[in-house]
Amino acid sequence: MSKPLNIGLIGCGFMGRAHSNAYNQVSHFFDLAYRPVLKAVCARNAESAQAFAARWGYETVETDWKKLITRKDIDAVDICVPNNLHHEIAIAAAKAGKMVLCEKPLSMNTAQGREMITAVEEAKVPNMVWYNYRRVPAVTMAKHLVDEGKLGRIFHYRAVFLQDWTISADLPQGGTALWRLDASAAGSGVTGDLLAHCIDTALWINGGIDSVSAMTETFIKERKSNLTGKVEKVGIDDACAFLARFNNGSLATFESTRYARGHKALYTFEINGEKGSLKWDLHDLHRLQMFDHNDESRLRGWKSIHVTDHGGEHPYMDKWWVPGLQIGYEHSFTHQVADFLQGLETGKPAGPTFRDALETQQVCDAVLASAQEGRWMKVQ
Amino acid sequence: MSKPLNIGLIGCGFMGRAHSNAYNQVSHFFDLAYRPVLKAVCARNAESAQAFAARWGYETVETDWKKLITRKDIDAVDICVPNNLHHEIAIAAAKAGKMVLCEKPLSMNTAQGREMITAVEEAKVPNMVWYNYRRVPAVTMAKHLVDEGKLGRIFHYRAVFLQDWTISADLPQGGTALWRLDASAAGSGVTGDLLAHCIDTALWINGGIDSVSAMTETFIKERKSNLTGKVEKVGIDDACAFLARFNNGSLATFESTRYARGHKALYTFEINGEKGSLKWDLHDLHRLQMFDHNDESRLRGWKSIHVTDHGGEHPYMDKWWVPGLQIGYEHSFTHQVADFLQGLETGKPAGPTFRDALETQQVCDAVLASAQEGRWMKVQ
Amino acid sequence: MSKPLNIGLIGCGFMGRAHSNAYNQVSHFFDLAYRPVLKAVCARNAESAQAFAARWGYETVETDWKKLITRKDIDAVDICVPNNLHHEIAIAAAKAGKMVLCEKPLSMNTAQGREMITAVEEAKVPNMVWYNYRRVPAVTMAKHLVDEGKLGRIFHYRAVFLQDWTISADLPQGGTALWRLDASAAGSGVTGDLLAHCIDTALWINGGIDSVSAMTETFIKERKSNLTGKVEKVGIDDACAFLARFNNGSLATFESTRYARGHKALYTFEINGEKGSLKWDLHDLHRLQMFDHNDESRLRGWKSIHVTDHGGEHPYMDKWWVPGLQIGYEHSFTHQVADFLQGLETGKPAGPTFRDALETQQVCDAVLASAQEGRWMKVQ
Amino acid sequence: MSKPLNIGLIGCGFMGRAHSNAYNQVSHFFDLAYRPVLKAVCARNAESAQAFAARWGYETVETDWKKLITRKDIDAVDICVPNNLHHEIAIAAAKAGKMVLCEKPLSMNTAQGREMITAVEEAKVPNMVWYNYRRVPAVTMAKHLVDEGKLGRIFHYRAVFLQDWTISADLPQGGTALWRLDASAAGSGVTGDLLAHCIDTALWINGGIDSVSAMTETFIKERKSNLTGKVEKVGIDDACAFLARFNNGSLATFESTRYARGHKALYTFEINGEKGSLKWDLHDLHRLQMFDHNDESRLRGWKSIHVTDHGGEHPYMDKWWVPGLQIGYEHSFTHQVADFLQGLETGKPAGPTFRDALETQQVCDAVLASAQEGRWMKVQ
Repeated sequence: MSKPLNIGLIGCGFMGRAHSNAYNQVSHFFDLAYRPVLKAVCARNAESAQAFAARWGYETVETDWKKLITRKDIDAVDICVPNNLHHEIAIAAAKAGKMVLCEKPLSMNTAQGREMITAVEEAKVPNMVWYNYRRVPAVTMAKHLVDEGKLGRIFHYRAVFLQDWTISADLPQGGTALWRLDASAAGSGVTGDLLAHCIDTALWINGGIDSVSAMTETFIKERKSNLTGKVEKVGIDDACAFLARFNNGSLATFESTRYARGHKALYTFEINGEKGSLKWDLHDLHRLQMFDHNDESRLRGWKSIHVTDHGGEHPYMDKWWVPGLQIGYEHSFTHQVADFLQGLETGKPAGPTFRDALETQQVCDAVLASAQEGRWMKVQ
Repeated sequence: MSKPLNIGLIGCGFMGRAHSNAYNQVSHFFDLAYRPVLKAVCARNAESAQAFAARWGYETVETDWKKLITRKDIDAVDICVPNNLHHEIAIAAAKAGKMVLCEKPLSMNTAQGREMITAVEEAKVPNMVWYNYRRVPAVTMAKHLVDEGKLGRIFHYRAVFLQDWTISADLPQGGTALWRLDASAAGSGVTGDLLAHCIDTALWINGGIDSVSAMTETFIKERKSNLTGKVEKVGIDDACAFLARFNNGSLATFESTRYARGHKALYTFEINGEKGSLKWDLHDLHRLQMFDHNDESRLRGWKSIHVTDHGGEHPYMDKWWVPGLQIGYEHSFTHQVADFLQGLETGKPAGPTFRDALETQQVCDAVLASAQEGRWMKVQ
Repeated sequence: MSKPLNIGLIGCGFMGRAHSNAYNQVSHFFDLAYRPVLKAVCARNAESAQAFAARWGYETVETDWKKLITRKDIDAVDICVPNNLHHEIAIAAAKAGKMVLCEKPLSMNTAQGREMITAVEEAKVPNMVWYNYRRVPAVTMAKHLVDEGKLGRIFHYRAVFLQDWTISADLPQGGTALWRLDASAAGSGVTGDLLAHCIDTALWINGGIDSVSAMTETFIKERKSNLTGKVEKVGIDDACAFLARFNNGSLATFESTRYARGHKALYTFEINGEKGSLKWDLHDLHRLQMFDHNDESRLRGWKSIHVTDHGGEHPYMDKWWVPGLQIGYEHSFTHQVADFLQGLETGKPAGPTFRDALETQQVCDAVLASAQEGRWMKVQ
Repeated sequence: MSKPLNIGLIGCGFMGRAHSNAYNQVSHFFDLAYRPVLKAVCARNAESAQAFAARWGYETVETDWKKLITRKDIDAVDICVPNNLHHEIAIAAAKAGKMVLCEKPLSMNTAQGREMITAVEEAKVPNMVWYNYRRVPAVTMAKHLVDEGKLGRIFHYRAVFLQDWTISADLPQGGTALWRLDASAAGSGVTGDLLAHCIDTALWINGGIDSVSAMTETFIKERKSNLTGKVEKVGIDDACAFLARFNNGSLATFESTRYARGHKALYTFEINGEKGSLKWDLHDLHRLQMFDHNDESRLRGWKSIHVTDHGGEHPYMDKWWVPGLQIGYEHSFTHQVADFLQGLETGKPAGPTFRDALETQQVCDAVLASAQEGRWMKVQ
């Protein structure tokens, strides 16, 4: 029989749902030594917390996270609150001896991130950051192919994360629903929200970034605040693009915006190597495009691999249905929980750990500094 | 609080998993008056049944379906066993006063189907057949658009369901895993397994079929039987294609095969009307392609609608994530459960009911007869 | 120096332009022993003929084709007039000892076609029918790949040619511009105009067809005639679909219509074999889609080959630009002229000859008879 | 009758062919007051020049361009030689009173370009630079749509031009065939060769660029020289990427490389505005992708417009075939000649003139300086 792992979830917004679903689903589809138990959910508003608990099956409810992290029946604390709260909660949870699973980005900045790492490493508690896109099967397979050397020496990497949901000047900023538009809660705009995903994947697949040159823009300068009811200056970046040089000598372009009309969540990346290339697109997340220069010359072309085969060939897909039948966005979280649980079993922690995720934070900081100062910055 | 609806599931294969998942998930994402309770699962092999119950949370286990259908604590019987067993179980369950949810195709033939309808209608029990693809959001939206008259008069319908998993002559037939290749268990090959889906969608969207001209083929004539261990004649159709005339005057082509190298589960349909056209493909199930002749002339083209918006605009998607983020194959079952439960609440049964599904059976029978006799057949 | 081949063109409509362009262009891009010389163009209307001659560089003009075909300075007669005139002109030209290049379809029916073959074969004159799509580089490469056995045993072939330009009931029929809608001039509707192309390619790539079951439809039953000014019955087929069995045991579906809203000239074919599959689409004519089952299992997928490489690897493309840069529709005619001229040089005639093209005629006749009689027909 | 315009072509390489074809074709397809006459071709090697003249129909041959530009029977000089020769020839031709058509990029640098502008403007001779991609019908239509305000305020522009033909370290540099890899002949690598095209289109569609931050890389540092036979340092940029801010406030990323495995000539651009977005790709040059935010909300999506309609709706396409049938790369030059000739007739010069093209040169200079100095540069 599998061993219970008692989860205490803090925050019951969009990410709270995604994580709760993952905890529920993982034991239906994966055979693991541990099974998550939904022990407690915490939200400031008791009613919300209770409704959430009823829907997802949490056994108990808390309204004060400080109480939750000290409960003896909690093994792991999952932080699903705005970015400005990650630091305090994560450190407190680690000090309380809990495993810590933290939503991305890790922190508001590198300095905070370092303190969080110190906390979890001193406490020796398992820790993880929810960069979920690593566990989309096609993305995981891209990582495998690069690691196997299928692309050879890498020359280029390019990634975008394009959305269009903030174009209207009538959209307000801040508050529970729109804290991502509030710099004090989110830290930054698209850089921390969207580019952080692109950077995490890039670092994972293509190694470290040496230096960046960035530009940011805030197209709508003022918006009504949901907190004050007044029109206030917008503090976040609506768009950010940067050039980068990786440590392996490859060149990269990264771009994110919420002003690319027609794109809902167009996260794409492409990587070009001496022997081949790969492309992926979140909108059709099962398709990994591959160009293999080893193919017979006249028959070379971009191949659309529908990453849905079972039998162990396509990552994670042996757990689901049959070839051709898709899974969705939320399954990336289920896979991440599965890997986290397996990490507990094997002792090899599933990434990205806090330490892994710090590197993304360092790049984000360099990007924002580069944009502000208008010059190339080393990542440090 | 929602009312429990106690489910008794018969069969714990692929479809048993898909349905169990749907029962579990529906209450997490939909707000409904009823909530499914996994009361009992039935399989001949007690060990399999117990393992399945443990994984999915069924409270009890049965090994004899006749016992299951008489249990007082069961409200609805869900039939997930090979086609040749649907008839007997469904009639018995109806007679026992249970709601009946039956996997597709409804029956081995039209005659059986009629008896099953009589049973559920005499017993006045809610009933449904699991033609799940109706509830892929893009397919549901196609139905809405045609019903609204966006395409105007319909001229053409074409559908294929192409697979390639039986090309190897070494693949055996029959037994638990491969009953779909055994004519005595499945009734037919691709016609009942795959074309039945295409026909169900077509009838739903484009109305009744008047007549058909079909051909079938069995490419590999003999295969080793998993039941007898001997090489035996293959009784099923490996491929089937047919021409059809719909009652509304439109023409159609339908084709299915398990010998189309390169296609895992390529279910596509296209419908051409006076004012516009629609296309859909299971391999990229969120994309509904639309051509709208009302567009400005020079700007006309096929539009790829990523059916993932919330806010009620894209069917079912307000229950899931945010625009651009996908759901998968299994969600179509979750939607079907949600609609079934809502049907109980509103008294308007969710389709396809047994009666609706009979029409698909009639077309399948006409198709198989046409292929055998080599002539056009009326659907009756 | 190359030898002149004096061309006499009959008809200066759409096809007259396409052929004239090919005669002009071939010597710019191909190195051949013969070069076409635009000696004379013939049209009933002298003014039209003169304007056409001035534009394209024809040296002289005729208004009576009977005169043109007896001119001593004409080596080859090119027939670009409506289908009902092919038979008489081709036979007369052959008897006059001229090479004959005839627009497709060869004739109004098989009987006419046989007489035309007798004429050119008795006269021993080179002859060819303009099924130009064989010479789209991606189509030619498809033929090569099948001939090399890259697909292995063939199971399925499917082709469509979908248009939407006759949906309006206000479109008249007949006359110079719209003779394709006049059964007396065209012989049939989409069958001879569009399906003939699909059938030619299919026979070329996949061998002979044994039998067919077809249906046709005329959606708009009456249209104003450009000839009489009156509303008259429409004699052509607006749509035609048929099932076919090839001699090699493979199954096929074919469909053509001018009522498929959203498709301008969607000629597509797909062929599925044991080892691989191919797909092509006229709308993106440089792309040959290939699935190769020999690829490493997890990396299998449909590959989009952009057939634009030079160096002899991609058919004809060494004559044009550089990889990635496209050629267009008209180049297929240029290639056909090049192959015809090379055939003169080598003595191996370029196909399809009249004899080759008769086979397409036979299939068309069987298709039309099958549709009329409502039963399967052998091709004979 | 149309008036002759006598062309003197200098250089008979790839571009010499493309231009000669355009001069030949334009009168077949366009009705214009002027018709180009192929009067003379000039190349250092007399044999090459004669063979070229024979193939394309040039009446005479020269081996010294200085002689050609003074011939009285030459109206227009077309410069198709490496970039380092543009300046001298163009100025001399202008001084000789000839119209000047110059291959792109205009010059080796901005300073040269200014002198060339002075020369043609003082001489009052019509002048044009062959940025041919403006005349791909889909690109022209993109320009029209932006000018009409269909996209509203522009937020983003992104363009890439990706190739992969220089990845092999065995490829030599320099000489007739590979002068594009020789910095002394080409001025720069991908920046002048490929990015110049992207920049020309961008400036045309989206207006001027204010400032850039660029990086370049030379992946293979040394190659054998075709001129000296020795291994020498590579002077060109293999790859270049830059960030840009347009004068209209929009942000842009540009990238070009010859090390993007799998891309033959992937020139793509995308432009995002408040009301809509456009995308284009040279590999499928007839397809303009458009997203129109004015579409009914639930039906919004990217539309693939196959820009092949006649009737004046799709730029230039009324001159060619019928809807759905493609033209190719070389037709963009034919269109440019047609527009140039029409400009002579109307007095409104067709762009890009030398003055227009200087702006692209200024951006290229800023890009190269930015990359060298590692900082943002104003375009000036």
